Formats: sequence, structure tokens, C-alpha cells
Amino acid sequence: MNNVSLILKRRAQLTESALIEYLPREEGLQQTVVSAMRYAVMNGGKRIRPALMMEFYTLFGGIEENIMPFACALEMIHSYSLVHDDLPCMDNDDMRRGKPSCHKQFGEWQALLAGDALLTYAFETASTRTDYTVIAPKQACLCIAELAKAAGIYGMVGGQTADLECEGKTVDIAVLEQLHLMKTGALIRVAGKIGAIAADARKDQVEMADGYCRLLGLAFQIKDDILDVEGDPVLLGKPAGSDAKKDKSTYVTCMGLSGAKNELGNLTQQAIVIAKKLGSPFLEALAEFVASRTT
Amino acid sequence: MNNVSLILKRRAQLTESALIEYLPREEGLQQTVVSAMRYAVMNGGKRIRPALMMEFYTLFGGIEENIMPFACALEMIHSYSLVHDDLPCMDNDDMRRGKPSCHKQFGEWQALLAGDALLTYAFETASTRTDYTVIAPKQACLCIAELAKAAGIYGMVGGQTADLECEGKTVDIAVLEQLHLMKTGALIRVAGKIGAIAADARKDQVEMADGYCRLLGLAFQIKDDILDVEGDPVLLGKPAGSDAKKDKSTYVTCMGLSGAKNELGNLTQQAIVIAKKLGSPFLEALAEFVASRTT
Repeated sequence: MNNVSLILKRRAQLTESALIEYLPREEGLQQTVVSAMRYAVMNGGKRIRPALMMEFYTLFGGIEENIMPFACALEMIHSYSLVHDDLPCMDNDDMRRGKPSCHKQFGEWQALLAGDALLTYAFETASTRTDYTVIAPKQACLCIAELAKAAGIYGMVGGQTADLECEGKTVDIAVLEQLHLMKTGALIRVAGKIGAIAADARKDQVEMADGYCRLLGLAFQIKDDILDVEGDPVLLGKPAGSDAKKDKSTYVTCMGLSGAKNELGNLTQQAIVIAKKLGSPFLEALAEFVASRTT
Repeated sequence: MNNVSLILKRRAQLTESALIEYLPREEGLQQTVVSAMRYAVMNGGKRIRPALMMEFYTLFGGIEENIMPFACALEMIHSYSLVHDDLPCMDNDDMRRGKPSCHKQFGEWQALLAGDALLTYAFETASTRTDYTVIAPKQACLCIAELAKAAGIYGMVGGQTADLECEGKTVDIAVLEQLHLMKTGALIRVAGKIGAIAADARKDQVEMADGYCRLLGLAFQIKDDILDVEGDPVLLGKPAGSDAKKDKSTYVTCMGLSGAKNELGNLTQQAIVIAKKLGSPFLEALAEFVASRTT
């Protein structure tokens, strides 16, 4: 296993230990919905967003453990978005990472409320678990604001909206880029920004964090679109061509497979330039990792 | 119009002006979902929660205008909960206050995302619109934590969960009280708590705020259950007996109509005692108002 995989694995373990500690207990009248929350979060995800946040937080002087409330909050928001995305009235997906999607496992209202509860619990976790002697309330308020903006109508939810509005329509590459900067990009981008702000980094450092993560988020989505066409359905845990089947525009439908691969290469190189400026071998390797991943 | 109605009306206008200012614009790819957000929030509600928050904030030294970001955040959360509650997989209600419910007006995924967006925007509004020179970041973090807890799995969402889990089952009065303290009580209760904390009130003052609002929240729910049986369907904008039809336990099914009315009277008297201690004629009159309202 190479170095970036080892760091990702260690940080994923840190994130999962914290998630297990933070998430509510499966008891009382809320038992089923709490089980659905835990099922949705403990889904074998790669925890790239928390790892990114930890990288920027430590790069600018913090200690990994202290950013865990925000890292977990971000992962909770990511998880809730997948639960709601899979619902029958949205993408209507029965499977997620090779397992039944949350509403298939627990029922529809249970999944809806588990998503609502996770989104809310993200803000509870960030605001109640942060050590305010380390991350001052002023920085914490800024981080909460960034988290809400990234998850909201001008961020991820806006992207989901645009995605559904554009279904069955031909969109140009500019609209597609805008859509993905919101839908998948916003939560990746904010990981770096929160890491930097929580560490009280300088404005130009926050901007570099934002710039790197913007490129990484776009690269991540293009790779997703490429994997949808030529990835291994067993490794991906979903059938090949499932986006194309839904009549969705992707980077591959807009630019062709080789065009998408070129664009992925360009974005990766740009991200590596910023990573070198920041002096982070992890961020260099992560950009390569995102471009070459098979799942 | 009596005094409490006048104050409620004035504060509802303040809240609605702020909501109109804060809510996103109806433009771009998010247009439909933003329209659904606005439709859900600008629904002719009485804005009792914001009025309560303003009362406690001013009672402990604040100025109404400065608590508006949190007052509006609370109302956005209340509104999102109604949108999700009305969805087909939840209560499946076609009408809300005499108008089509959000998913009937805009479609199901639009309503789902509008709810998600409103919940998220509540935290965005609270964290980005607060004047931190008036409400210090430390107090703001505490208020955000209270808001998230009240809206979450141990608060409102927990209550919705319990409500659906108990549907068709006979529950005793203790379970029903617990359920309603979460489902409708939590957001009413937190209104007072946030008002007091934002004004940097003493611990015993925060507890009095919490105590009054706990009683008011329960009284509010009992009155709802009574109105469901003997209210005017035209004034209420929904058919009489709609809870009973759904096979839900209510205070009336548990205690009988006169038992429920007695309990309402008791809670109202207890709330008035605290209101007198706090020296707030508004809170005295509000307790009477909640018990005697016809809508």
C-alpha cells in the first residue's frame, strides 16, 4: 500500500472512531431511525473529505484530533445527501455501495427522517463537540457558516436541484461544470476551507486551500463519470452506465471519453502545482490517487 | 384586537420582513426549489416561536432586531418540518392551512429538497446574519447548539419518529407527553432558551425561560388536539378529526375531551405563574391566547 493510501486509511479509522462515539445510541422510540442514521454513515466510504480537512488543519498548525467534530459533521452531511438522493422521488436507487440503500433497508419515512436527523446532527456535533479553547468561538462560527453554505441551496442542494432540473436535457460543459461544482464539489471544497479557517490560517492560505479543493472536486466528478462508463461494476457496487441510463449529461457525454480523460489530467496537474506550493506530499499524491482510483 | 394579538402581529411582520430579506432569490437553476422554500415559509403562520424568542431576548436586555437571524432560523426549521411531514411517505397531507401542501404545489423531489435547503439555510442564516458585536461568538455557538438539539433526533425529528412509530398503537399519557415534548414542544421550548442565552441571561433566568416554554408547548399541543375534535374546519383549513382518522393517539383520545381541557387549564395556570415571576404581561396573555385560540 502506498503512502497516500496509508494516510487515508489511518484518517478514515480516526473519523470512524469519532463517528461511532458521536452518533446517537440505538434506543428508545428513536431506535429505528438512529439505526438508519448509523447504517447510512458507516457505509464503507473512503472518508476523503475528513482526510482533506485534517490535512489542511494540520498543514496550518492544528492537531488532527481537534478538527474531528467538523470532519465528522461534514461526513454526516455527505451521508445524509446520499440517503435523500437514493429516495424513490429522487434518483430511486435500490443499491448503494453493493448494499441495499437506506430506504430499502429501513423503509421510506425512516430514511427521510434519518437524513433530516443526520443533517441536523452535523450542526449539533460541530457546535457541541468542538473544544473552544482550541478552536475559538469566532472561528467556529465561521466554520459553521461555511459548512451550511456548502451544504445548502447555493452548494450541494443547489447542485442536486440543478442535476434533476437538467435530467433528459442536453447541457453544455459550462452548465455541467457549475452543476458539479455545487453537487459534489461544494462538500469537497469546504473540507479544505474549514480546515484552514479552523487553524486560523491567513486569507491567502485559505484561498489556496479552496483552490486546490475546487480542482480536486472537479477531478473527482470527472473520474466518477469515467468510471461509470469503463469502471468495474463489482468494484463500484453498481451497474456500469447507470448515469447514462438515467439520461444524465456527464463529462463523458459532453467531451467524449478521451476529452474527459484529458480534462482530468489537466485538473490533476493544476492541483499538484498548488500542492507543491503548499508543501504537502499528501495533497500531491491525493490528486494522483483521485485520478487513478478504480472505485 | 387585544394587546397580545397586537404584539404578535407586529412581531410576525418583523419576522416576515426579515425572512423575505434573508431567503434566497428565485433565480438560476435553483429557481423552482427556492420558490418552494419561499412558499413553505411564507405560509401565513402565526410566528409564535419568533415572537417568543423576541420576548425573552428583550426581557433579558436585548433589542428585537438583533435576534432576527435566530428567530428566522427557527421559523425556517419549523417550516421545513411541515414540508417533510406532509410528504406522501410521511403524513401524506395534500393541504396545509387551506392551500396545497408544498409537494402538491411543486412536486415531490422539489419539496424534499426545499425542506433540506430550508433546514440548512436556517444554520446559514443564524451563522452569517448575526451581528457578532452584539451577540458574541461564544453565545452564538451556544444558540446554534440549542437550535440543532431542538430540531434533531432528541428533539423534533425524534418526536416525528416517535409519532410515526406509535401510529395505530395505543400509547399511555406519559409516552404521549414525551412524544409531544419532542415533536411540537422542542421548537417552542428552544425559542425561549435561545432568546435568554443570546441575551447572556443568568442560568436561573435561562431555566425560567425553558420552564415557561415547556408548559406553553404542551398547552399548544393539547389545544391542537382539542381543536382537531371541536375546531372549525374552515378556520383551521383542514377537515375536523383528521388526526383521529389517522389512528393517532391524542390528548383527547387518552384523557377524554374534558380531561384534556382540564390539563390545558392546569398548564396554562402554571405558565402564568412563571410569566408573573418574569414580570412579562405578554407571556401571561400569550398563555391565555394559546389556550383560547380558534386556529
